Amino acid sequence: MNDKQTAIKNYLAAGKATVEEALDRLMPAAQGPFADHIEAMRYSLFVGGKRIRPILCLAAVETIRDDGTMLQAMLPVACALECIHTYSLIHDDLPAMDNDDLRRGRPTNHKVHGEAAAILAGDGLLTFAFELLTRPDSNLTAARQLRIIELIARAAGPEGMVGGQALDIANENRKYPFSLLQTIHRSKTGALLTCSVQAGAVGAGATPAQETALVDYGAALGLAFQIVDDLLDATATTEQLGKTAGSDEVRGKATYPGYFGIAGTRDQARQAVEWAKTALNPLGERAERLHDLADYILSRSF
Amino acid sequence: MNDKQTAIKNYLAAGKATVEEALDRLMPAAQGPFADHIEAMRYSLFVGGKRIRPILCLAAVETIRDDGTMLQAMLPVACALECIHTYSLIHDDLPAMDNDDLRRGRPTNHKVHGEAAAILAGDGLLTFAFELLTRPDSNLTAARQLRIIELIARAAGPEGMVGGQALDIANENRKYPFSLLQTIHRSKTGALLTCSVQAGAVGAGATPAQETALVDYGAALGLAFQIVDDLLDATATTEQLGKTAGSDEVRGKATYPGYFGIAGTRDQARQAVEWAKTALNPLGERAERLHDLADYILSRSF
Repeated sequence: MNDKQTAIKNYLAAGKATVEEALDRLMPAAQGPFADHIEAMRYSLFVGGKRIRPILCLAAVETIRDDGTMLQAMLPVACALECIHTYSLIHDDLPAMDNDDLRRGRPTNHKVHGEAAAILAGDGLLTFAFELLTRPDSNLTAARQLRIIELIARAAGPEGMVGGQALDIANENRKYPFSLLQTIHRSKTGALLTCSVQAGAVGAGATPAQETALVDYGAALGLAFQIVDDLLDATATTEQLGKTAGSDEVRGKATYPGYFGIAGTRDQARQAVEWAKTALNPLGERAERLHDLADYILSRSF
Repeated sequence: MNDKQTAIKNYLAAGKATVEEALDRLMPAAQGPFADHIEAMRYSLFVGGKRIRPILCLAAVETIRDDGTMLQAMLPVACALECIHTYSLIHDDLPAMDNDDLRRGRPTNHKVHGEAAAILAGDGLLTFAFELLTRPDSNLTAARQLRIIELIARAAGPEGMVGGQALDIANENRKYPFSLLQTIHRSKTGALLTCSVQAGAVGAGATPAQETALVDYGAALGLAFQIVDDLLDATATTEQLGKTAGSDEVRGKATYPGYFGIAGTRDQARQAVEWAKTALNPLGERAERLHDLADYILSRSF
């Protein structure tokens, strides 16, 4: 592992710790009449995960403004992104959807809390995310907060993440053109990842040009992330993944390796990471962290 | 039927038409790659319903400001409330929850679209509601919009509607104290009804005293609404309800008639409506509509 990789690994570990501390502080405690429901939400929220969406959001903030109070102000936004991601995993794992027993090496939410409680835990996390996004902070104007809420609601909504999941489920075990796979990836995974970077940019007060650069970066990074995910599902073991490996093939899901083979998919991942890094050019040296994050995502696939 | 009842019936019919026209205009059309998902959302949204939450919101607006542009500005908020209510019905009806086949006299969402699509339709409606709440309008400041989003997210969240549903499901077929029934009613039904009135107040720029009066009204009305719902489930036919009658008893759900009998429950409903009307006193004649709405809710139970 080279110096850059070590540095980014440390950065990711520190970011994960920051996000998890904030999540624990911002989430209601599992006590009072709703203790069981809150416990079910907390179970999936703290079962692990790389916290990549909140880390991307905070890294985008740092790229625009090197200012600790701004990072603090954006922590509820970062945590809201993780709540939305976690809700999507709980619902994706349900018996009616992917019917998965394992997530991050642990039993899925419905295996522990039952199906009804798991559906509601997902609903609760999604709703709580929007409450977090309204937390007042003197470093964020109401107009900026409102814009972030709009971006996140769109990215997670019917023409973003939820719509993408619906499209994915509806097309299992069907042959379909590559263009549909791109639409599914862009909506199901890409939209929330892109929006994580963009929310950081908006919160930190990026200029329109800076925001565009970060959105382009986020879109390319989201694509790289999904391609690497497809690769890992095809090449890694269940133990390495913490979730069932090879499940895409079992479910007849279209994936990049299905269209391009393993070597061709690696080329596509490399190309997407190049796009991501090129998009950062207008931001200069300040974007070094985001640059290294893109390289790191690629390194996972080899 | 007396004149007041006729007037309020006409008001409710006009409100329902206004809300349904706005919902149809504001919801995405069922076309493009996400057409099936949007169609599943629209199915439940347009299957019927009294639209009582959006109507309460708009009636609160009118109570504070008699101004057509303000009513227009608040239409997306009113529609968001209906989206959230509809999502909660879709998820409540799922096989893992109440397992209901009928809703408003028509097959439930999962009966028509399948379980996975129904879960996602609910998720999509909840997320889209928050997008609606960010719609810009020059009659609403960003600060006011943000406050409305916070109120709605809290009311629908883990310590509001979703938490109440989790508590309700967890306590089926158990004997429990009346205080727990009150907690379930307040969170599962009361919170969103109260918040519908409060959102109207905040949007229209109510003074703190006016807002408090409307919140008290909303809480009492929400209670009356739930007591009447319990009564109807025990006394009306499936055809009258458009959903399976007597289902509370079949599921071993605690209800007001279970604690107080039918006559005692009618007294409780009457009392809650009195509280609601008394709460309106500080608002004077402007609150006549809300006053008559409370009477109307009571009249449903006799």
